[in-house]
Amino acid sequence: MATIIDGKAVSLAIKDQLKKDIAEYKTSTGKDISLAVVLIGDDPASKVYVNNKATACEYVGITSYTYRLPQETTQEQAEDLVSSLVNDEKITGILVQLPFPKHLDENKILKLIPANKDVDGFSDENIGKLLQGKKTVVSCTPFGVMELLKHYNYDLTGKNAVVIGRSNIVGKPMTALLINANATVTVCHSKTKNLAEIARTADVLIVAIGRPKFVTEDMVKDGAVVIDVGINRVDGKLVGDVDFDTVSKKASMITPVPGGVGPMTIAMLMKNTFIAGTER
Amino acid sequence: MATIIDGKAVSLAIKDQLKKDIAEYKTSTGKDISLAVVLIGDDPASKVYVNNKATACEYVGITSYTYRLPQETTQEQAEDLVSSLVNDEKITGILVQLPFPKHLDENKILKLIPANKDVDGFSDENIGKLLQGKKTVVSCTPFGVMELLKHYNYDLTGKNAVVIGRSNIVGKPMTALLINANATVTVCHSKTKNLAEIARTADVLIVAIGRPKFVTEDMVKDGAVVIDVGINRVDGKLVGDVDFDTVSKKASMITPVPGGVGPMTIAMLMKNTFIAGTER
Repeated sequence: MATIIDGKAVSLAIKDQLKKDIAEYKTSTGKDISLAVVLIGDDPASKVYVNNKATACEYVGITSYTYRLPQETTQEQAEDLVSSLVNDEKITGILVQLPFPKHLDENKILKLIPANKDVDGFSDENIGKLLQGKKTVVSCTPFGVMELLKHYNYDLTGKNAVVIGRSNIVGKPMTALLINANATVTVCHSKTKNLAEIARTADVLIVAIGRPKFVTEDMVKDGAVVIDVGINRVDGKLVGDVDFDTVSKKASMITPVPGGVGPMTIAMLMKNTFIAGTER
Repeated sequence: MATIIDGKAVSLAIKDQLKKDIAEYKTSTGKDISLAVVLIGDDPASKVYVNNKATACEYVGITSYTYRLPQETTQEQAEDLVSSLVNDEKITGILVQLPFPKHLDENKILKLIPANKDVDGFSDENIGKLLQGKKTVVSCTPFGVMELLKHYNYDLTGKNAVVIGRSNIVGKPMTALLINANATVTVCHSKTKNLAEIARTADVLIVAIGRPKFVTEDMVKDGAVVIDVGINRVDGKLVGDVDFDTVSKKASMITPVPGGVGPMTIAMLMKNTFIAGTER
């Protein structure tokens, strides 16, 4: 039976460390770290996420500002708000909560956020730095996966890592991080032909495709580390992209869903906000 | 016996097409495409490269300006020159010929070049765009490899591609291009443990490590496409990273050294200069 990777405990440890680091930074520099969160419209899940982010900010000592705009906000109004935050010296990090209402052009709004206030790691410049192994903020989910492996003292050097999924938010930045951490990395996706065979070569298998219980026992090598990034709602229950019940009998370590990668994302957002805020 | 991929012929075809496209662009817009090349110091190889670039510019119809500064140029003088080119409206592309003399900080100088005048594809922003699959200029060597495969009608979709080498100039951008072209991609490097075994899974094997004849027959699957990015000088002769004589008997297609990937880089530089120049 695999070790169950406890994302809740790790994320709490990270937030506790951050709390100390931020307090020390504020005392020694007299400067503030702050996060402006922009929420547009009535998406219920988005409202919950935004509240969770504000709570996390409060916990670690980041000043948070939440801007709630109505569903009927125009493109111009949204851009004006984000631009004003870009120019506001007291704001050190900006996050726009996606998705926006459909009539708004998300990309145009995201592009307004400069790399030094981009706490999501979504800007072209920050993604470019990431691929090259330069210090930068990193998309929260893959950053969280790396922190989980670090907290469980897993050394990636020379390991065969297989990433299933090639999204710009998870699969691709994950791949960059793993290459820079000295793993041999294979990226699989919808066009991959011999997926099960490749997955079985993985010492570390990272799955981020959004298909419930897609990875089954026969796709996993004995003793592999399995990281499940998927969060799918099936019959009102959250399940990952990995068939936990069977795969956990073969793996040496595995993340559960919920309670694995999920809780890490807000902790990493806090860490990114600290990194962005101190790189001024 | 493998088909020998003819980089010279393909690069000429690309330059001839560019010549037409640039002439048409100039006529229809009344605008110019130009490239400023900065050479500092006495490196003999650099002088040859800079001359070759000027000749290629002339061939395709790009106005070229070459700035030659002496070996004893100071950091401030170098930065002043590059900054003046950044602000010069008649210059649409800027290339600094590396390596610079050792007393200069290359990275600080490279960072002055904005993404829209970066014809090498080295800027953080352009590398970030590349990883996400957005339209951008791409580091010339991996861009050249993609064009070679395209000219030989090789469809990467669902193919297993193995990249040996993870440099910021070749291995990493190559990986990004292959993922975006729907290949299943594995990146190997100095820490990879079972390299020969992984290399043998490759439908397409791309080698960029700078070690003469490193890839031998036993590391290549029958019928694989082998792309040799290495250019090593051994006993006064140029040899690649692949043992051409034996591997060419197993491969279905292979690039020779010289005459394979090498001639493509200047053609792709011309193409990048055109892309950067028309995206104003």
